[in-house]
Amino acid sequence: MIKISIADAKMMKADPKYFTGNAWLVRLAGSDDIAVNTARVTFAPGARNYWHTHPGGQILIATEGKGYVQKKGEAIQVMLPGDAVTILAGEVHWHGAAPDSVFTHIAIQPKVGGKEIDWLGEVTDAEYGAGK
Amino acid sequence: MIKISIADAKMMKADPKYFTGNAWLVRLAGSDDIAVNTARVTFAPGARNYWHTHPGGQILIATEGKGYVQKKGEAIQVMLPGDAVTILAGEVHWHGAAPDSVFTHIAIQPKVGGKEIDWLGEVTDAEYGAGK
Repeated sequence: MIKISIADAKMMKADPKYFTGNAWLVRLAGSDDIAVNTARVTFAPGARNYWHTHPGGQILIATEGKGYVQKKGEAIQVMLPGDAVTILAGEVHWHGAAPDSVFTHIAIQPKVGGKEIDWLGEVTDAEYGAGK
Repeated sequence: MIKISIADAKMMKADPKYFTGNAWLVRLAGSDDIAVNTARVTFAPGARNYWHTHPGGQILIATEGKGYVQKKGEAIQVMLPGDAVTILAGEVHWHGAAPDSVFTHIAIQPKVGGKEIDWLGEVTDAEYGAGK
């Protein structure tokens, strides 16, 4: 059993190679010996990640503020605290904050062969603006 | 992509066969096609689950109130909002609320062959009281 206390948790800046705007994350999985990765991610207003897929899918749980999530080819959906979104393996999608709100979610990705994500291209302002 | 809105989420009473006191849970995984189960669980003060193990381990994320978690043979540990605890596959443990607080956590269990939990015996008042 491994405890990551909030008092000691290490917050990292999200990799700008895959994020538009500022985001920060805290790793919540205490060991590589568990087949699921889990992090708390906070996006500044307007910030979002790039289009991507997960080989084992993903569960997002909104905890703070107002966020967006979009599956390629579908409308942008709003996420509010308590909402949960399941993204199936291979579904192209992105997520992030609304333009006028910070947004925090917990992100849960089962690992498939040690891998949990495949990044694609940037979410353009035009694509993001479609959520307004 | 499947969204479970907090407005529509179905809260269930936890199975009294495996819980001491009252607890309620909301399923957050929107599909059986993802290899991880996830739920939000709220315990009334003093309530806790039975000793158990997970074939794929578990990650707990405290979100509200004050809770306890204990691995067999180790001291009870307090969980406060933001704390995360990783329980490895096969580790005998239990979790629940402190005597004087409700406690809510998100529980994340990778499924192994479709299975995510093996229940053992009750946490006695003497065992639980050791956390006071």
